[in-house]
Amino acid sequence: MPELHLPQQDKTVRVESGGNLFECLRQQGLPVQSACGGMGTCGKCRVKFLENPPPPKASEQAHLNNEVLAQGVRLACLHPVEQDLVLGLFEANASTDAKEQLKTELDVALEPGVEKLCVSLACASRRDQRPDVVRVEQALKRGRLDWSKSALTSLHRALRQDDFRVTLTLAGDRVLDAEAQDARAHCYGVAFDVGTTTIAGYLFDLGSGRELAVKSLMNPQRGYGGDVISRIKHVRDRGQAALDELQRVLRSGINALLKVLCREALIEPRHVYKTVFAGNPTMMHFLLGLDPSGLDHSPYIPVTRNLMTFKAGELQFDIHPEGRVCVLPNLSAYVGGDITAGVLASGLHRAQGVNLLVDIGTNAEIVLGNEQRLIACSSPAGPAFEGAEIQCGMSANPGAISHVTMSAEGLELEVIANVPPKGICGSGLIDAVGQLLALKLVAHRGNLHAVDGLSLSGRVTLGDNGQPRFLLSDEGEPIYLTQKDVRELQLAKGAVRAGVDIALQQYGIAEDQLDHIYLAGAFGNFLRVENVLRVGLLPNVSPEKVAPVGNAAGTGAVMCLLNEDKLDEIQTLTERMEYFELSNYEKFSDVFMGSMLFPEDGPGKGV
Amino acid sequence: MPELHLPQQDKTVRVESGGNLFECLRQQGLPVQSACGGMGTCGKCRVKFLENPPPPKASEQAHLNNEVLAQGVRLACLHPVEQDLVLGLFEANASTDAKEQLKTELDVALEPGVEKLCVSLACASRRDQRPDVVRVEQALKRGRLDWSKSALTSLHRALRQDDFRVTLTLAGDRVLDAEAQDARAHCYGVAFDVGTTTIAGYLFDLGSGRELAVKSLMNPQRGYGGDVISRIKHVRDRGQAALDELQRVLRSGINALLKVLCREALIEPRHVYKTVFAGNPTMMHFLLGLDPSGLDHSPYIPVTRNLMTFKAGELQFDIHPEGRVCVLPNLSAYVGGDITAGVLASGLHRAQGVNLLVDIGTNAEIVLGNEQRLIACSSPAGPAFEGAEIQCGMSANPGAISHVTMSAEGLELEVIANVPPKGICGSGLIDAVGQLLALKLVAHRGNLHAVDGLSLSGRVTLGDNGQPRFLLSDEGEPIYLTQKDVRELQLAKGAVRAGVDIALQQYGIAEDQLDHIYLAGAFGNFLRVENVLRVGLLPNVSPEKVAPVGNAAGTGAVMCLLNEDKLDEIQTLTERMEYFELSNYEKFSDVFMGSMLFPEDGPGKGV
Repeated sequence: MPELHLPQQDKTVRVESGGNLFECLRQQGLPVQSACGGMGTCGKCRVKFLENPPPPKASEQAHLNNEVLAQGVRLACLHPVEQDLVLGLFEANASTDAKEQLKTELDVALEPGVEKLCVSLACASRRDQRPDVVRVEQALKRGRLDWSKSALTSLHRALRQDDFRVTLTLAGDRVLDAEAQDARAHCYGVAFDVGTTTIAGYLFDLGSGRELAVKSLMNPQRGYGGDVISRIKHVRDRGQAALDELQRVLRSGINALLKVLCREALIEPRHVYKTVFAGNPTMMHFLLGLDPSGLDHSPYIPVTRNLMTFKAGELQFDIHPEGRVCVLPNLSAYVGGDITAGVLASGLHRAQGVNLLVDIGTNAEIVLGNEQRLIACSSPAGPAFEGAEIQCGMSANPGAISHVTMSAEGLELEVIANVPPKGICGSGLIDAVGQLLALKLVAHRGNLHAVDGLSLSGRVTLGDNGQPRFLLSDEGEPIYLTQKDVRELQLAKGAVRAGVDIALQQYGIAEDQLDHIYLAGAFGNFLRVENVLRVGLLPNVSPEKVAPVGNAAGTGAVMCLLNEDKLDEIQTLTERMEYFELSNYEKFSDVFMGSMLFPEDGPGKGV
Repeated sequence: MPELHLPQQDKTVRVESGGNLFECLRQQGLPVQSACGGMGTCGKCRVKFLENPPPPKASEQAHLNNEVLAQGVRLACLHPVEQDLVLGLFEANASTDAKEQLKTELDVALEPGVEKLCVSLACASRRDQRPDVVRVEQALKRGRLDWSKSALTSLHRALRQDDFRVTLTLAGDRVLDAEAQDARAHCYGVAFDVGTTTIAGYLFDLGSGRELAVKSLMNPQRGYGGDVISRIKHVRDRGQAALDELQRVLRSGINALLKVLCREALIEPRHVYKTVFAGNPTMMHFLLGLDPSGLDHSPYIPVTRNLMTFKAGELQFDIHPEGRVCVLPNLSAYVGGDITAGVLASGLHRAQGVNLLVDIGTNAEIVLGNEQRLIACSSPAGPAFEGAEIQCGMSANPGAISHVTMSAEGLELEVIANVPPKGICGSGLIDAVGQLLALKLVAHRGNLHAVDGLSLSGRVTLGDNGQPRFLLSDEGEPIYLTQKDVRELQLAKGAVRAGVDIALQQYGIAEDQLDHIYLAGAFGNFLRVENVLRVGLLPNVSPEKVAPVGNAAGTGAVMCLLNEDKLDEIQTLTERMEYFELSNYEKFSDVFMGSMLFPEDGPGKGV
């Protein structure tokens, strides 16, 4: 079997001879992107042959220019593996990314539900023949315990290694582990936020509540498509084997992240006894090996809604095999554990005033309510906020224009990683259109046009298609915002706003009755509130009512990691959340059409 | 790798080239006996080369005569495996043996704690978007359930296979399984009695309480020694790898028995959802992979005493992976789940009168008490009752003299399977000595001698060692009962009787205050009460107070299989049993010496 040598990853894998390189890479959970699933049409599955690149295929030249081809870059899906290869993969390794940092100050008592106790016991003798387990139970004075197989099999030796001094790891009355000597110092937990694109992990010391490491990793499932729909389709088309494969690939990502976290914190994975997973429903289905086929078409039915607990061994996570795996409850096929964790973190369910939580991605999840009542829906924003379907769009990676400031005098760009701009991401798009609206270069209905006497009007020209476009940057390849891009934003923000407006209507309150609007997720974190309000993505409230809440899903998961009672709290709040299906709402199209317009009265109140 | 072809077993296994044949066989859990562990000294590991027998080794001739050698019989431990072999193994296959049959009429309510429920649900629709799990939970009206991973992963497809009609298997609020359609008819359980020599299995329909199959199998661990001591020593000498090996071998026996039981009853193993294990503490340690090293030397400490529950998947038993595995509690290193199950079956713990339960093997386990108080001890009877250390001794297999009747006129033998006698087993030994005592051919102190005027006296001769011996049979090879055999019986029965007498003393009652004496186990079942009393194995009570109770361990395990409450009952009775260590009892030697004598006043009361 040929070998793939991956010097960057410090890894060598064996693959089937004659297999398609793209297939081999994604089945190994290695970083490779794809939108077309290996059909040779999307041009995303780029790899670099570090030695002996094969001759380029004719179809490759549509996606890769000569300079890139000369560097040995090829599309993996167009090449078979017939011999050993040395490859470079295009991947950011595990990173400690600012956008994964927890924003909220964690205000939870440290009650993780897992504790380590050390006891020194009387040695066994002819006058004291109590079985090992009874000896421990009587010393702990907590009644009869529920011993895991793992703890039982370790106990005999652990007791005799250090003169009957032993450390027990308990979760309630369940004994997870038995170790010789005083091992209380080592008791850890990890919270995960599993996104379609990124998996973030937060490693904590459960004894002190201290954060030890935060890392994120690209979701290795992205070789099966960038969005959940293509991954679900892969399973529906190919059945159980594909489900197993996608579960395995996701697991490999989680285990890789665990390894990185433990290495960073210099701890042993077997001392991780609790994990909490927040994620969208599709990711949680894959995590557990549940069939996701009901999620992507009407009537949109997930397998479960409950908070669930498993053993790490059951899911083959590389921590202590008896370690608890808590999967946060979802509400519906699109309102997942990431959202319920976000509600927990932002405290909607405990507040007297009515608050709105919005998490914007390909879908926008919307939760509205207070301690009395919570309602939720999901609105199909489409991919514009992720930079897709935008002419110069890209995701929020180095080189993306993330912020735009315009004035009568000129224009300033903020670019991720301070490199020359390569494109524009979702927050830059909202900023740009918001600023153009402020200068009336974009009108109420979305038309892009020059304005007399404004120097920036010189940047408005006609594109090849005869439609106007706005030049954002001519440093290197010119970057334009086109009329079509503005329309795409209108569609996207219109869907979100329609969802919010219908939610307010369902709830029976007016927008000025809202106490706060919380923007969850990495995207929400990047947004400038004034421009969000200018484009009318959100109801017309004063800007100080709008607050980004960082990675609320991660924050909620960490709260559940550190405080066991939060697991009940999140289950209870999920059970009382009312889900309503936007597409069932008769007037959705009308509201949507109206929401696509930009606010006529200009920016939001007070901007 | 060479192959071993085993036509009787209809099996072919691959083994390492050059490996020792005995090692290969026992590591595969195949039937091969040994007392010396493969040192070539015990002569027990006989196999038959069905093709091309190798030349016999010189050391083989000490154990196998020429006729046997000519048939191709060899000692496995003396031959390496260098090529494919065709072998016959000396084993009784799984049998439905009379001695495993349950004696007691089972008087338990059918409440197995596992049930199957079938529900027909409203199909999912845009107006009814409840997740699958919620849909099922609301139909069952039992609140939120604890879903196993297995049930969750099956649910989506099961629901959609038959129009949302589905069968759930529940153990309390735990969902073990989800199947399409109405599958309520298939819900089974198996009770096991795991002995050092034999594993017996009882397959029941948990829906009707009907017994479907009973089978027993030789314990495949016997390649590691006939008794628990040599198997424990194997682990102590060789460490974790040997423990893993013995666990694997025992598991292979249990899985083989499960297969036989399911095939007999024409059911699918995945429909077995509950198993209950009774066994001696050493076997239960091996079953769970617990280190047995504390069991065979002072202070004799087992790892645990609790009733324990696992999932079948954790122990790799070939039933439904979520099937419950209940391991009955033991009291001490020698009083195991087989004995606590025996107490449950014979009802000592519920009776007002004081009863005695005795289970005789290499050790005799003794339990004494009533609903108020229970005490237990274990007495080292030695191997005489198993036919070892007896000149013509053998275990209770075909050809063994199992019963002996003597009168002034002559002698009658009962031989297992009605074949010419080959030796004498434990029950035959007790019968023979009991009858000789009645005829005064054996005296109070155990001396064997002729009695004037008794024709049977002609059978008393002097052996090569100058000691008297009694001719039991001269059909074929003569079978004698020697003076030394009588001494061995005195040692064995003396140990049991000493244990019983000390127990009575500890309890503070006299022997005539005993209500009943129950003889548990296969051996107890074979005994003739009159001779048991004549030799003084038991206190001097009237014979109608003595009752064999069959396989009480199996009966108790089946009771727990059919009625979940019995699991609590057995745990509670075990917790209140007081164990006392006979060897701690200062006057043990005195009592033991006295107990070796035969009753001076002849037979027990009323005999």
